[in-house]
Amino acid sequence: MDTRSRHLLLELHGCDPKLLDDEQALGNAMREAAAAANVNVLHEVFHRYAPQGVTGLLVISESHFSIHTWPEAGYAAVDFYTCGQGAPERALEVVKRRLAPSRWESMTVGRGLSADRSMRVTHRQPCDVPDCSDPSCAMMRADV
Amino acid sequence: MDTRSRHLLLELHGCDPKLLDDEQALGNAMREAAAAANVNVLHEVFHRYAPQGVTGLLVISESHFSIHTWPEAGYAAVDFYTCGQGAPERALEVVKRRLAPSRWESMTVGRGLSADRSMRVTHRQPCDVPDCSDPSCAMMRADV
Repeated sequence: MDTRSRHLLLELHGCDPKLLDDEQALGNAMREAAAAANVNVLHEVFHRYAPQGVTGLLVISESHFSIHTWPEAGYAAVDFYTCGQGAPERALEVVKRRLAPSRWESMTVGRGLSADRSMRVTHRQPCDVPDCSDPSCAMMRADV
Repeated sequence: MDTRSRHLLLELHGCDPKLLDDEQALGNAMREAAAAANVNVLHEVFHRYAPQGVTGLLVISESHFSIHTWPEAGYAAVDFYTCGQGAPERALEVVKRRLAPSRWESMTVGRGLSADRSMRVTHRQPCDVPDCSDPSCAMMRADV
């Protein structure tokens, strides 16, 4: 089986704290994201922390999806890791729509490329334009 | 709770195919890695694919650990995602020792920094020296 995979890391800020503490709503969002990405969910485990916050992990045929939430900060960290024909970008759209962040960003890392090639940051959003003059974009590129 | 987290992405090439298909050995390695990283395992789920390959996900108090293996390629992809006082670098050392890759690399991403700061690639190994002349290192930096 082809080892090449895309691992999309997603940061969501300014989400509704109540939603980020709702295990069932988060589960629904992640399952809907999996369906949109055309991946096959094999197992899932959700855990609610005391006093708040949720972790959800989905084993999929194509690797994994994960979500971690900090309701008190309105922040969630989501990963879509897919080998094969999975489409993590579609999962991103679902989760953005469901969690409605005021600010978000993503980074996609190419993994499992081959023994003589390195991991590769292939895409950053919202801005990926080489000469973009947006200050937040410049900050983002300066970080890598 | 502090949202700041370190997410270490690890690629391992040239591992023993038998070991990469041994669910129990991989589970032991990941649990040992969790202990070394000083994180608390809450749940775990391991899945063996047909005809080969294993996915393992650990929910920890500090976020998650994951492993995906492709025995036929001698390749494994491992993630150590920790908030709080977890030490993903120690987990890396355990998994490297257990899986004995002929080549490996890692990238650490700073996440959950704050609403006005972006994800940050904070560290790449094996080489992180700005003016290093090693060709594989140059290739690695050219990718980001």
